[in-house]
Amino acid sequence: MRIERLCIIGVGLIGGSLARALRANDAVGEVVGCSRSAEHLQQAVDLGVIDRYDTDPAQAVAGADLVLVAVPMGAMEAVFKQIRPHLAPDAVITDVGSAKGAVVDAAQKAFGGVPANLVPGHPIAGTERSGVAASFAELFRQRRVILTPLAHTDAEAVERVRGLWETAGAEVVEMGVEHHDRVLAATSHLPHILAYATVDSLARLHEHDEIFQYAAGGFRDFTRIAGSDPVMWRDICLANREAILEMIAHFQVDLTALTEAIQARDGERLVEIFSRAKRARDEHAPR
Amino acid sequence: MRIERLCIIGVGLIGGSLARALRANDAVGEVVGCSRSAEHLQQAVDLGVIDRYDTDPAQAVAGADLVLVAVPMGAMEAVFKQIRPHLAPDAVITDVGSAKGAVVDAAQKAFGGVPANLVPGHPIAGTERSGVAASFAELFRQRRVILTPLAHTDAEAVERVRGLWETAGAEVVEMGVEHHDRVLAATSHLPHILAYATVDSLARLHEHDEIFQYAAGGFRDFTRIAGSDPVMWRDICLANREAILEMIAHFQVDLTALTEAIQARDGERLVEIFSRAKRARDEHAPR
Ligand SMILES: NC(=O)c1ccc[n+]([C@@H]2O[C@H](COP(=O)([O-])OP(=O)(O)OC[C@H]3O[C@@H](n4cnc5c(N)ncnc54)[C@H](OP(=O)(O)O)[C@@H]3O)[C@@H](O)[C@H]2O)c1
Ligand SMILES: NC(=O)c1ccc[n+]([C@@H]2O[C@H](COP(=O)([O-])OP(=O)(O)OC[C@H]3O[C@@H](n4cnc5c(N)ncnc54)[C@H](OP(=O)(O)O)[C@@H]3O)[C@@H](O)[C@H]2O)c1
Repeated sequence: MRIERLCIIGVGLIGGSLARALRANDAVGEVVGCSRSAEHLQQAVDLGVIDRYDTDPAQAVAGADLVLVAVPMGAMEAVFKQIRPHLAPDAVITDVGSAKGAVVDAAQKAFGGVPANLVPGHPIAGTERSGVAASFAELFRQRRVILTPLAHTDAEAVERVRGLWETAGAEVVEMGVEHHDRVLAATSHLPHILAYATVDSLARLHEHDEIFQYAAGGFRDFTRIAGSDPVMWRDICLANREAILEMIAHFQVDLTALTEAIQARDGERLVEIFSRAKRARDEHAPR
Repeated sequence: MRIERLCIIGVGLIGGSLARALRANDAVGEVVGCSRSAEHLQQAVDLGVIDRYDTDPAQAVAGADLVLVAVPMGAMEAVFKQIRPHLAPDAVITDVGSAKGAVVDAAQKAFGGVPANLVPGHPIAGTERSGVAASFAELFRQRRVILTPLAHTDAEAVERVRGLWETAGAEVVEMGVEHHDRVLAATSHLPHILAYATVDSLARLHEHDEIFQYAAGGFRDFTRIAGSDPVMWRDICLANREAILEMIAHFQVDLTALTEAIQARDGERLVEIFSRAKRARDEHAPR
């Protein structure tokens, strides 16, 4: 697995980390970066994450054999449109967007049909930090990456993208676009929304300063993800809207049941619910 | 600060950890343990956490100058009743219950009035594990302990209990009973209930096995507290029912607003909510 020229559009946490991982494994010749801000890109050069940059996506993709699009979901369509006329004919394109239906839609609109050499992908890895300064080569090690190729996606392109992530230490799996969006709405998007809502709710209490002061470890862990980037999460909420709304509704049923058990002082029911949840959690997330 | 004979009723995570901390600091002569199960207590002896034990609370408190009650909230009243006739007249009693109004009520009922030498307390420390095997001496180091003495509580008793926790490395603060219960409902009880409801909700999805498989770091942190003891959390929900219901209702307002913004595809509003939450979180929980 060797890439001659990799173009990364969006050299932030995810794009920067993949560049670092590939370089650390000597799997790439030249890395060309691209984003809106020359300052951010210069920082990426200074950090040794990319070799050179161009703020014009059209210029940046010229001659690249692999193009990684790692911008916020809301910028995908515009980026696809900008790079379209300048892509090398055999260039493989992949992305890292947290919702796949929306990326497929964006490609549909920008290219007038999803190109066979576009492989939608999503690394299940990240932190609540963003920007190239937060990137590190080990981010994807032993983490999963989900690829959601379509029926007509080129098998060789899929293999190339698979190799990319495996080089970075990840385990690659494939699933359907809709299935991906549902699984991620449950395991990532819902928890983020609940963490944001919790912190926002407590911040509205008049004794909020004191409240955060007495927040212990459990609370810190629970709300860490509310430190994530607001724009990225706006984009995810809009991009995976239906699946997210479905998961919130599903969650509301359980929260209401729990609330009613507390209201009714139904201790037996509370133990039942808590035990079932504890079992599910312990089974799937060993200490 | 030296205790001649400390009696710990409930030698689990909290009671065991305090015993370990006091012994490590050579602050205690003899430690007598008490709970329902002789097997658990023998384990505590084997681990060097207590010197000896009695499964009869009445026997266990005999001659103790300090009694620490560290049983689940639901067992408090019964324990108070059992020890009442056998307490040394100058013995100081304290507890570690996660809700203080309920402990005060339990004492009221058991003693026919809250004794002046009973100091209600609550260490803001813990893990999702329980039992004496999970206890460790450093649990309270640099953590806060809240004492909620009443107007007639003996000042010397408060000082003794303060010394106990300070010896274990904690910072001790005082606040009113109701205020404590409200602050803890917000920072601890609400997050636990949401984590339990989230895990339970996802476990009900038909693709639950797969869903948990793709759960990444953020999800693990978010749901770690759903591994906590179901009986302890039933007791807390019943003991702090009003404040908890109030916090759930308060949270529901914010979750509904967020859901409506997603429904309406209101990106501006989403960024506003997420940014406010991120600000609150970053301000209070530095990385
Ligand atoms: N963070 C996670 O946990 C995580 C996990 C999996 C997938 N993802 C997905 O990965 C993608 C990137 O996330 P990230 O965490 O790496 O974010 P990030 O650290 O904020 O990086 C985003 C990058 O995109 C650039 N950018 C933003 N708007 C752009 C535009 N209109 N045109 C060109 N470049 C633009 C930014 O640079 P400039 O400001 O210089 O433009 C920045 O380099 C998102 O689609 C997200 O859904 C994130
Ligand atoms: N864990 C936390 O994060 C945390 C934090 C702050 C405060 N607290 C409070 O601390 C208290 C104890 O919690 P923990 O985490 O230490 O629980 P734990 O590890 O389960 O310990 C509870 C202990 O109480 C004993 N016990 C249970 N029922 C009893 C009864 N009816 N009579 C006598 N002993 C009984 C148990 O032993 P047997 O099974 O042998 O009876 C066990 O030793 C609770 O009130 C809780 O609200 C917990």
